[in-house]
Amino acid sequence: MICIVASTNRAGSRSTIVARAYESVFASLGAESSFLSLEDLTGVMVDAVMSGNREGSGFDALQATVDAADAFLFVIPEYNGSFPGMLKVLVDLLRYPDSFQGKVAALVGISSGTQGSALAMGHFADILNYCGAHTLALRPRLIRIGDAIEGEQLVDEEYLSFVKMQADQLVAFQRAG
Amino acid sequence: MICIVASTNRAGSRSTIVARAYESVFASLGAESSFLSLEDLTGVMVDAVMSGNREGSGFDALQATVDAADAFLFVIPEYNGSFPGMLKVLVDLLRYPDSFQGKVAALVGISSGTQGSALAMGHFADILNYCGAHTLALRPRLIRIGDAIEGEQLVDEEYLSFVKMQADQLVAFQRAG
Amino acid sequence: MICIVASTNRAGSRSTIVARAYESVFASLGAESSFLSLEDLTGVMVDAVMSGNREGSGFDALQATVDAADAFLFVIPEYNGSFPGMLKVLVDLLRYPDSFQGKVAALVGISSGTQGSALAMGHFADILNYCGAHTLALRPRLIRIGDAIEGEQLVDEEYLSFVKMQADQLVAFQRAG
Amino acid sequence: MICIVASTNRAGSRSTIVARAYESVFASLGAESSFLSLEDLTGVMVDAVMSGNREGSGFDALQATVDAADAFLFVIPEYNGSFPGMLKVLVDLLRYPDSFQGKVAALVGISSGTQGSALAMGHFADILNYCGAHTLALRPRLIRIGDAIEGEQLVDEEYLSFVKMQADQLVAFQRAG
Repeated sequence: MICIVASTNRAGSRSTIVARAYESVFASLGAESSFLSLEDLTGVMVDAVMSGNREGSGFDALQATVDAADAFLFVIPEYNGSFPGMLKVLVDLLRYPDSFQGKVAALVGISSGTQGSALAMGHFADILNYCGAHTLALRPRLIRIGDAIEGEQLVDEEYLSFVKMQADQLVAFQRAG
Repeated sequence: MICIVASTNRAGSRSTIVARAYESVFASLGAESSFLSLEDLTGVMVDAVMSGNREGSGFDALQATVDAADAFLFVIPEYNGSFPGMLKVLVDLLRYPDSFQGKVAALVGISSGTQGSALAMGHFADILNYCGAHTLALRPRLIRIGDAIEGEQLVDEEYLSFVKMQADQLVAFQRAG
Repeated sequence: MICIVASTNRAGSRSTIVARAYESVFASLGAESSFLSLEDLTGVMVDAVMSGNREGSGFDALQATVDAADAFLFVIPEYNGSFPGMLKVLVDLLRYPDSFQGKVAALVGISSGTQGSALAMGHFADILNYCGAHTLALRPRLIRIGDAIEGEQLVDEEYLSFVKMQADQLVAFQRAG
Repeated sequence: MICIVASTNRAGSRSTIVARAYESVFASLGAESSFLSLEDLTGVMVDAVMSGNREGSGFDALQATVDAADAFLFVIPEYNGSFPGMLKVLVDLLRYPDSFQGKVAALVGISSGTQGSALAMGHFADILNYCGAHTLALRPRLIRIGDAIEGEQLVDEEYLSFVKMQADQLVAFQRAG
């Protein structure tokens, strides 16, 4: 099971649109996937932060989705020179170390400008590494993402080819893992 | 005005104890300081995250404290190979770019083990840099912090000398800035 | 073939001693390995840097050793907050991208103090990632390495168990790759 | 004295062209500068690496230039996801810690594509920090640098305005330091 994570809590994010493109490709490859959107999970995470514990049906379901995955695909926009704070809040809340240990993870960075999310992915790879996940080498940087989307769809042919290539690699990696 | 930030929302953190040690030293140097503990600010930050806006008296006071500061001292524990997620949530919420632009910042890393928060400080320095803050070179790594604290006090002589040295440098930097 | 790289050109380095410990473990696992010591390769690298080309029998042999490997184990000391400069010189000299693309790499950091090489490994992992290598999650930090060595042998039991564990993982990863 | 460092040993580099643009701006600001091109210093560095010592008139002159500077401007191209290896060789060769301690440094990243050298600058800032140098927040990323140069001159108006802005900040920082 590959868990796709749209790594921002911003409403109507382009991260979610890109994450859905991966979901389609995984389906076409016959690879099962689950989907976590931080936008939808903000309330659950905030409750856990406020209460200082991770009990409650919402968090249980989130943890169970993570537990069921043996691979992850993180779609990461760059905010302020790094990943979104709420993505790290998620990692800080999840059980350690079995949430990620021995699993494989792939990162894709998106940006409206040309920054390309290199720092965000570099930082987050250090975190995944600490948590025991192997990280896939290929890290596409989808710059000027606004130009690559029409309506609710990623339509840029080159970017779709990156998505396909990375999805292929992650599936191969997952099977090897 | 130097704003001291205890960068974790964990209750009763050692970060807060170390942050208070800096507060004493700044006072002894005649340097004015303010104090932000993410533990106390969790509710305010969570409200802003949930509402998607930063209006409300709690957040206004937080932003005003940041605006009034021309220097920052961040006490940063390392969680999962980086800074606490809630510290980045704070940065993502604050107004950009004037919250940090042209200001100076110092980082001190604490850890219960020997990891020493090098990655956490490296990542957060990239963020401060993006936000336009100059960062002080000296970044003490206070390892095995539990052994350096008695009651609610940082008592280790060597660590207190690091605190003093860094506080001196930040004050000099602030005056120059 | 697993290529073990002792990543410093300093004479008589502890990196080489640790690298030899991995060599023994790989042999005991029935995994073939090759060995590159930057100390021995300084002349070859320097000739390539000075001439601006990578021709000549010495460099050909070095490149061939890299080409023959499908996995790498880098023993990395931390110099000045990062990996040794000569390690990056090696990467800059090797053919791109086929030297590392699609291969797997493991990193172990050594330090005489408690710094533990976290930054050195984090930086070098970004480079390996750029070069297309997947990086193993486990990155042992062998601090106070001087206390763990007797004569020319790594003797610390805990550290030897890390070496064994990482070697096991890399061999499993290599076979999966 | 501001020491400008063209941080690659490649012949005829665009780094050198950009570095010369800073030299002109510093002159127009009445700020004294010195100039180190790693291209010209390759022989000196290689001799020091090979001999394992840093004696000899060439290295003495290099160290003296560094010693005389109280501020640095590094022009850094990104090679293989980080700074050029020879730049780190330079840092590893220079005397520690007084070469950089308490001095100020500014970084500018150049790239032929859109990568923009964010990782190279992030890594190198960690090194400067370790060496005790304060780093200026502003880190221009001059992407597609080939389009910004005509003959041996940086001609792009926007990039020249970044150069001017950063030079102004470094001079102000230097005077404050």
